[in-house]
Amino acid sequence: MNRRSYALSKVYRLLEPGPVVLVTTSFQGKHNVMAQSWHTMLEFEPPVIGCVISDRNHSFAMLENTGECVIGIPTVEIADKVAGCGNTSGASTDKFARFELTPEPASIVGAPLIAECYANLECRVTDTGMVERYGLFVVEVVKAWIDPSVKNPRTIHHLGRGNFMVAGEHIRLKSKAR
Amino acid sequence: MNRRSYALSKVYRLLEPGPVVLVTTSFQGKHNVMAQSWHTMLEFEPPVIGCVISDRNHSFAMLENTGECVIGIPTVEIADKVAGCGNTSGASTDKFARFELTPEPASIVGAPLIAECYANLECRVTDTGMVERYGLFVVEVVKAWIDPSVKNPRTIHHLGRGNFMVAGEHIRLKSKAR
Repeated sequence: MNRRSYALSKVYRLLEPGPVVLVTTSFQGKHNVMAQSWHTMLEFEPPVIGCVISDRNHSFAMLENTGECVIGIPTVEIADKVAGCGNTSGASTDKFARFELTPEPASIVGAPLIAECYANLECRVTDTGMVERYGLFVVEVVKAWIDPSVKNPRTIHHLGRGNFMVAGEHIRLKSKAR
Repeated sequence: MNRRSYALSKVYRLLEPGPVVLVTTSFQGKHNVMAQSWHTMLEFEPPVIGCVISDRNHSFAMLENTGECVIGIPTVEIADKVAGCGNTSGASTDKFARFELTPEPASIVGAPLIAECYANLECRVTDTGMVERYGLFVVEVVKAWIDPSVKNPRTIHHLGRGNFMVAGEHIRLKSKAR
């Protein structure tokens, strides 16, 4: 993976558009990865993210036990792998092997980076107060990586039932927004 | 506005892709509207949404006082109005008038629908437990409306600093996902 450190102050730009992400966890020597669309930024810097992971997901216990995950952001080139991760359970499948995703060691957390994702965010759980009611884990990004060779990442956005919208044209508008 | 009731069970399909939304509030006879990208689905049905509104936003007190809002989903055709809403404050500007957005009475909540949005979600705040720490309001969608004449809504997704990605091509992948 061609990887460069990415400023934590810019992380919101990766998630604010609402892409499908791949969340990795690692527990007792086993990695898992799930496809996920229910996330939102909660703070700019340090970047804090709210991420919904249901207790019906195999990743749930792994995240609860370790308090660490990596949020990888895929592009349309690996959309089939993303859909595959969403259609299988880590309880019965080694998804990294089955969908030919390459786990790479993170720098701070135990969960793996995904070589095929153009961006990877190393995260630590900082608040589990909303987990029981909403499955909402609050995580802080402690290290961010990006592939500098990917200039205009064509992210994918889930419309439901396997229908995805691919990132389209870019427009620039006069804005005071961060 | 050409408007038809939309099934609450399908609301997640409108927000899961991560579009910029317009959030309206109404308090003491005044309407306000803000542009917002920090939201996530929390539950499918009834649809529950986590929506970050900072206490620096004029909408914050209006939402706290009324417990009601409307989430309108704009398309690229009104991107300039959306950016305008993001660049101004309801404290000093009547944004509906300035950006020529048309408020229409909702059926259940006091906040107005936006005629220029292809979808409008009437929402009630159901949990303010995360407001103080994250500005995260949990709202339940109590009524949803869609413009049936809009077939492929070209939503906009904020990349930061006034750069927006427009919804692009659609792809369909074999999926068990809801």
